[in-house]
Amino acid sequence: MNAEDPAIAAHVAELCQRARPAARQLARLPAEARAAALRAAADALAQRADSIRAANQRDVARAREEGLSAALIDRLRLDGDRLDGVIRDLRAVAELPDPVGAVLERRTIAQGMLAEKVAVPIGVVAVIYESRPNVTVDAAALCVRSGNACILRGGKEAGESNRALAEAFRAGLAAAGAPADAVQLVGIQDRALVPRLLARDDAIDLVIPRGGEQLIKSVVACSRVPVIKHDKGVCNLYVHASADLEMALRIAINAKCQRPAVCNAIENLLVDAALADAFLPRLATAMRERGVELRACPRALPLLPGAVPASEEDWATEYLALILAVKVVDGLDDAIAFIARYGSQHSDAIVAADEAAAARFLAEVDSACVYHNASTRFTDGGQFGFGAEVGISTNRIHARGPMGLRELTTYKWVVRGQGNVR
Amino acid sequence: MNAEDPAIAAHVAELCQRARPAARQLARLPAEARAAALRAAADALAQRADSIRAANQRDVARAREEGLSAALIDRLRLDGDRLDGVIRDLRAVAELPDPVGAVLERRTIAQGMLAEKVAVPIGVVAVIYESRPNVTVDAAALCVRSGNACILRGGKEAGESNRALAEAFRAGLAAAGAPADAVQLVGIQDRALVPRLLARDDAIDLVIPRGGEQLIKSVVACSRVPVIKHDKGVCNLYVHASADLEMALRIAINAKCQRPAVCNAIENLLVDAALADAFLPRLATAMRERGVELRACPRALPLLPGAVPASEEDWATEYLALILAVKVVDGLDDAIAFIARYGSQHSDAIVAADEAAAARFLAEVDSACVYHNASTRFTDGGQFGFGAEVGISTNRIHARGPMGLRELTTYKWVVRGQGNVR
Repeated sequence: MNAEDPAIAAHVAELCQRARPAARQLARLPAEARAAALRAAADALAQRADSIRAANQRDVARAREEGLSAALIDRLRLDGDRLDGVIRDLRAVAELPDPVGAVLERRTIAQGMLAEKVAVPIGVVAVIYESRPNVTVDAAALCVRSGNACILRGGKEAGESNRALAEAFRAGLAAAGAPADAVQLVGIQDRALVPRLLARDDAIDLVIPRGGEQLIKSVVACSRVPVIKHDKGVCNLYVHASADLEMALRIAINAKCQRPAVCNAIENLLVDAALADAFLPRLATAMRERGVELRACPRALPLLPGAVPASEEDWATEYLALILAVKVVDGLDDAIAFIARYGSQHSDAIVAADEAAAARFLAEVDSACVYHNASTRFTDGGQFGFGAEVGISTNRIHARGPMGLRELTTYKWVVRGQGNVR
Repeated sequence: MNAEDPAIAAHVAELCQRARPAARQLARLPAEARAAALRAAADALAQRADSIRAANQRDVARAREEGLSAALIDRLRLDGDRLDGVIRDLRAVAELPDPVGAVLERRTIAQGMLAEKVAVPIGVVAVIYESRPNVTVDAAALCVRSGNACILRGGKEAGESNRALAEAFRAGLAAAGAPADAVQLVGIQDRALVPRLLARDDAIDLVIPRGGEQLIKSVVACSRVPVIKHDKGVCNLYVHASADLEMALRIAINAKCQRPAVCNAIENLLVDAALADAFLPRLATAMRERGVELRACPRALPLLPGAVPASEEDWATEYLALILAVKVVDGLDDAIAFIARYGSQHSDAIVAADEAAAARFLAEVDSACVYHNASTRFTDGGQFGFGAEVGISTNRIHARGPMGLRELTTYKWVVRGQGNVR
């Protein structure tokens, strides 16, 4: 950590001091008041749309001057109907069922007392993210809806956009009588700030890093606050000897090509040796038509015109691009062992008519989501019917896979007695 | 962290390398095989009882030579019927219902596909603990029963006892055809080892520190692995104006005196001003009879013969001893604010006949366990009917309060389609 900067220390102290009372106030509001606060925030964003777009244009102009890539600049933009989309999504979160107060379990404990396990907000959630300014609104909406105060630390490039969005959001909360400090944006862009903030496990209950591998590694390395990672997806599709080839091809195309830049797209395709001759040439044709580069193991290579040899490194790489690594395997055990070794326990699928083989795959592949005869692209809060998602957790504890409002809650035990003592 | 010690680096590498395959093998065993493995471990412990007791006597003798306190030496001892108790508890864990494979939720997701949320083991769990050697067997039993491999790091004082216990346990696992490496004991006692081990978030999925505040702080500070803390309990009992005084007195005595050295005993008693005159002198008598020292706020002091003034520090102190801090409060809001400020969100109770007041207390006090008309001493896996417990989690995410077998599992989503693509 850098030398102590008093401005950073003071800013972290203030963020932390304001967050807890706001979280407590928010948690005590009735569900309907939290929903109304989000509607008011959406109104405020709509009212200030012109100044938000102007702030965003300044970010985009500066990004151009600084020579950022076209892809990065595109992610930054809130022009056209993008801001309307952000506001629409915010209104949708306001209408989702409230996760707080749900009785998750009832059990009779010692001396016949009733204990209820009740969903409660986590408390104060920090979200650390990169360039896309819509995350500011998404994260704030999901946190507030689930009764949590949030401290948001967005990317430097989107600084003016994030400030304009957060201020509008806070104004909306205040107008609805909810605590504005339930949404706080980190106001100092300095690398030394995040480690200081994440040392405050007394004030922050959870940190969610969303972004590239480097961001997530640095958060995990410095945080005393519990982390729920949204890390990379090295997803695999396994075509079993019993697979329907049409189905396997359709799923492979969807899982690789529909949106290659996302974490639930596949990076590796495994095919049983028995099917290689019949399947791989067709795969090659379909993938060539879609501009996909194939990297192949020695056994697959002769069956895939145009493919290049895969290196050891390829099997563990998240391409986020139209590249697919292909390997011939000797049956189910081989496929399961490959996925255990190279996959990232995100989403993996088997195509098989053989139910026993599918059952073993589903049981033994230890990933957040495992699929039989379906594309890995379904690993998504929207597809799972969560209404909205914080992202896809690659943690093993608390939340795994798509993370919605419910996963932003914890629980407490409420026990009612009649003077009971041990 | 100290300079690199090649022996430590090699030991950490070996522990991590052996744990994952053992975890995978364990997770694939049928529930009955894991139960049988625990029974075999219990048999092995019984067969080797003499050599385990001899190892323990060497630890105790060395502790005496080094001048450890009587309390510490007592915690170390496995003589008399203590080892039998450890083995009996191990056999009980073998008979608990299996937490793995339970379908926690079924939901229909996109395109009408069925998604099942299935409980699975967490994977590799590290447990870092202090002097009591029975934790070696308890932690190993709970981890293995829930399909997790464990890496155990016990206290230096119990080194020989822990080694003898772990070796017997491993021999039992092997005899039953289960992987011995599902239970590994850290073999090098060096402060530099734990930070190295807990840097391995690629190999270890969860760390559970059990012990004093310093141990827990140091684990949180260095760990990249997710931590579930078992931290201190500053528990509060609030006697509302509507309380039955007999009941309040009975609960206060139980919560303070039945076992003062545990985390679910109370440290603070709050009483409404309206009841202070009637209640506090009776409390003073009852507590004096039981040897409890009272520390009081200025308003309570004159009503508590023999009490001394409480300092600001007292309200936030976990005494773990026959000391009780007493404060007069002005109603429910005052009590809730006090608990929010000084409590540790472990276990808090209200005694009240007024149901509305109790409902507000239960809703607004944000602790792992909240009680109405019952003692905080019920915060315990046994009392909750969990059969056995890892401890009492003071984390807010994943597991809160008593942590049993189920809390040693995570989940995965199993999705079955018919060729579905997005």
